[in-house]
Amino acid sequence: MISFQTSPDRYRHWKLSIEGNVAKLSMDVQEDVTLADGYKLKLNSYDLGVDIELADAIQRIRFEYPQVRAVVITSLKPRIFCAGANIYMLGTSSHAFKVNFCKFTNETRCTIEDDSRHSGRRYIAALNGTASGGGYELAIACNEIYLVDDGNSAVSLPEVPLLGVLPGTGGLTRLVDKRKVRRDRADVFSTLAEGLKGKRAKEWGLIDDTFPTSKFQEAIDGVAQAASLRAGERVQAGSLHYSGIELHPLVVESTDSTRDYKYVSLRFHREKRYADLTIRAPENELPTDPDEIQKLGDRYWPLRAFRELDDALLHLRVNEPEIGLVCIRTEGKIDEVLAVDKALSANRDHWLIREIILQMARVLRRLDLTSKSFFAIVEPGSCFAGNLLELMLASDRSYMLNNPEESVEIGFSGLNAGALLMANGLTRIQSHFLGQPEKADLILEMDRSFDTEDAQDYGLVTFAPDDLDWEDEIRLAIEERTSLSPDALTGMEASLRFAGPETMDTKIYGRLTAWQNWIFQRPNAVGPQGALTNYGKPSKAQFDYKRT
Amino acid sequence: MISFQTSPDRYRHWKLSIEGNVAKLSMDVQEDVTLADGYKLKLNSYDLGVDIELADAIQRIRFEYPQVRAVVITSLKPRIFCAGANIYMLGTSSHAFKVNFCKFTNETRCTIEDDSRHSGRRYIAALNGTASGGGYELAIACNEIYLVDDGNSAVSLPEVPLLGVLPGTGGLTRLVDKRKVRRDRADVFSTLAEGLKGKRAKEWGLIDDTFPTSKFQEAIDGVAQAASLRAGERVQAGSLHYSGIELHPLVVESTDSTRDYKYVSLRFHREKRYADLTIRAPENELPTDPDEIQKLGDRYWPLRAFRELDDALLHLRVNEPEIGLVCIRTEGKIDEVLAVDKALSANRDHWLIREIILQMARVLRRLDLTSKSFFAIVEPGSCFAGNLLELMLASDRSYMLNNPEESVEIGFSGLNAGALLMANGLTRIQSHFLGQPEKADLILEMDRSFDTEDAQDYGLVTFAPDDLDWEDEIRLAIEERTSLSPDALTGMEASLRFAGPETMDTKIYGRLTAWQNWIFQRPNAVGPQGALTNYGKPSKAQFDYKRT
Repeated sequence: MISFQTSPDRYRHWKLSIEGNVAKLSMDVQEDVTLADGYKLKLNSYDLGVDIELADAIQRIRFEYPQVRAVVITSLKPRIFCAGANIYMLGTSSHAFKVNFCKFTNETRCTIEDDSRHSGRRYIAALNGTASGGGYELAIACNEIYLVDDGNSAVSLPEVPLLGVLPGTGGLTRLVDKRKVRRDRADVFSTLAEGLKGKRAKEWGLIDDTFPTSKFQEAIDGVAQAASLRAGERVQAGSLHYSGIELHPLVVESTDSTRDYKYVSLRFHREKRYADLTIRAPENELPTDPDEIQKLGDRYWPLRAFRELDDALLHLRVNEPEIGLVCIRTEGKIDEVLAVDKALSANRDHWLIREIILQMARVLRRLDLTSKSFFAIVEPGSCFAGNLLELMLASDRSYMLNNPEESVEIGFSGLNAGALLMANGLTRIQSHFLGQPEKADLILEMDRSFDTEDAQDYGLVTFAPDDLDWEDEIRLAIEERTSLSPDALTGMEASLRFAGPETMDTKIYGRLTAWQNWIFQRPNAVGPQGALTNYGKPSKAQFDYKRT
Repeated sequence: MISFQTSPDRYRHWKLSIEGNVAKLSMDVQEDVTLADGYKLKLNSYDLGVDIELADAIQRIRFEYPQVRAVVITSLKPRIFCAGANIYMLGTSSHAFKVNFCKFTNETRCTIEDDSRHSGRRYIAALNGTASGGGYELAIACNEIYLVDDGNSAVSLPEVPLLGVLPGTGGLTRLVDKRKVRRDRADVFSTLAEGLKGKRAKEWGLIDDTFPTSKFQEAIDGVAQAASLRAGERVQAGSLHYSGIELHPLVVESTDSTRDYKYVSLRFHREKRYADLTIRAPENELPTDPDEIQKLGDRYWPLRAFRELDDALLHLRVNEPEIGLVCIRTEGKIDEVLAVDKALSANRDHWLIREIILQMARVLRRLDLTSKSFFAIVEPGSCFAGNLLELMLASDRSYMLNNPEESVEIGFSGLNAGALLMANGLTRIQSHFLGQPEKADLILEMDRSFDTEDAQDYGLVTFAPDDLDWEDEIRLAIEERTSLSPDALTGMEASLRFAGPETMDTKIYGRLTAWQNWIFQRPNAVGPQGALTNYGKPSKAQFDYKRT
């Protein structure tokens, strides 16, 4: 079982150090410390274990060190920054694992960009040596890229020429959409196994500048200082007045069929290929003053509940591949959830509240991007309101009990109006009512709760069976869903969940990932003569040259 | 060898009739007239041959019957409109063929929408019976959908539940992005094998209305009349004053290694897996008055050359799968090409000129979407200017000879500034300079030709080798390109060609097609126990339920 929990004192591959306003994240991969057998992590290549530490470090910088305004990502290995995802790991992994691995590393890259966009922190890739494949993709997730000019070090995306697959963590998309490298040059660069060095790399926009070896460290220190001064106003404000909070390990109790956190529970029905995911509302009144909230730290419900939800989603993805459907349930009082949202909305400019809201948004996006079906089950005792209503709106369908004897309600809060955006830049209520934007506005303006008939009249829920049909209908819906082709469902859900506008993020997930998925299946990559299979062997890949 | 040329007198599956301002396209598929053995086209299901006729009919309506303002698409079979792509054909086709088939049918759907958007013609799907799968996808490419209310006929997308694949010709995207069906309802609809009938189909926005059997024909006639009155101004203006031109069959001469049209030539170097594609400029001065142009009809260079180019591209796609690289060359005088563009630009409001420009734009988009690498080879005697410059800008790379002894130029025309848009809504020069939009504007304003040094300084070409290196560099580039994994190249090119904004069309091709590609490869669809393989057999599909 793969665990996504770690902390700096347990890191094996990264060193996190903080000096004033600058954090330094140094990659120093231990080649024998791998998640699975059969490969060594040479040349700062990475597997999922390395990226779990990186994701943890970014998260900690945001919560534990709000004074940080610039983050330098570099390597402790001489002449090599990072050789990207380990090829032998990819060669020995199942298709499902590869896809989940690429998705998680993509999400980590997007978290860096999210921090930069919304919290104003500047990320600097200090390439003290060659950055190839995923190593260069990590670099282009940063705001600035500097490459040592030692006559040897290069940046490269050698996946197409060497491995017969694509740069899988957003490389191609970021190349042309973020760094806006000319598409013909991007074509040349992406087919050049050895990549490009110094002057040409800069001229083509692949890096921002080069520094000679002897002055590299000094130059990077200067760049980092300058970047920390240029950092966004938000992080500047935060960094002057606040110190961070500590993120403690999540407490989890597991049995074969359950996984329980404080506010989140999973129940696995493996023979039926579905799971129940329950989120509980806070038990009692929580502080509303940001300083008191900060004293609560990571025990504060929205932070804890959404960290737990994040871990549960990752667990479902990687450790429970056969679970095809997740029934989302909530328990507790709507008013308690709405009170939390009110406190969050009122203090959105406080650094911690801002980070908490941004974290909730990221977890919800993780749900949008999870290749499982989600059904929201809205029953008496549930509390699909405000931030938890997003779970219903993120689901592929919702079922709400219609029983006049036993009322059930859903409700909106200010957070539904723009704080928890999807990857396509829409709110989930906008996405739900893509054809009737005025309805989304109207419902938000009404600022009230909806009982079942009301929710049905306004088109908020998919189905509202009465109490006689309820159990049968849910049971049949689960049975039917879990009988369908899991691949077709993955493609269908990815297509239907993101209607409307596209962003760089949706392109990375919806388009690039789909291409990568396809290529990772093809004999030209993974067959006995495929390029990925043959990497590092004396034999050469044999291709079926038919173009499709 | 599959031919893409046909004409109404040779149609086996469609009947085209024109009555006043209304065209009727009636589907009556002959089940034994198939492109390959091993399947029968029952229930108005289709293979590529059926869609080639449909594409031809749409094209002819636009050029031969400009008076038509509304097009009714219906069926001559009782109780069935169209059962979609033939499943047994899909089950027995190679992966490459399936992908090319889906792409072509998608392009035909987009041509319908292009006609509606740019020429104002209204398309009406008159569903006299059930429309399932590709049959319903054809319907949602139309502006209006009417379903007979006979208690039995339904619309459906049964691919996910019955076949374990996706609706492959834009169905899912059009459902949520064009018709803006709520995503949770789209989820339900797309997993419901039997689809939805009358009232609910209308309530969910899947159709516009229903009419009872006895009044169906009459109602459709009324709807078509009303639609022809509501048709866009452009087609209204055209239809009052002009009669159409005839599209004659293209004349092609072929040998084993060549395919020659009047203005377009293909040379196949199969052992090296590349082809030369040459387009020749018009020989002499052409009329500039639209009435005189109309007298020339389909002999007019831009129409003929681009019809030939279209056919050459389709031939390359379907009949030459192992050709991975196409070197685009042009021959002739830049001035002659620019003179044509000037005449086209000056008469853009004339119905025929409008249709010719729109056709050129569609052919160029077909090139953008062709899964082959394109290198533009810019040599002395070439004429990459105006409309032909788009071929260079559409290429993945360009090579321009730098020889002071033998000058070569490229040039711009008004058509480069917005008449020939890519599927993402950008001009190709905007796409080329995505990171420097002011440069694209500047170059268009300069309105002049560029010699090699100039073109290089302005960043218009990828490489400009001198005459000593020229032959070696081109040869090496060809060798290198054709040695790479064809799958990785397809994914890479699809990612790099469409930077910047996304539209419904780019979503259909870039995202949906990629998902479909992947799913079409998976054992859950095409393995011995796959759903597609097992369709219609007594055995049931067996899935590997791991979600990826």
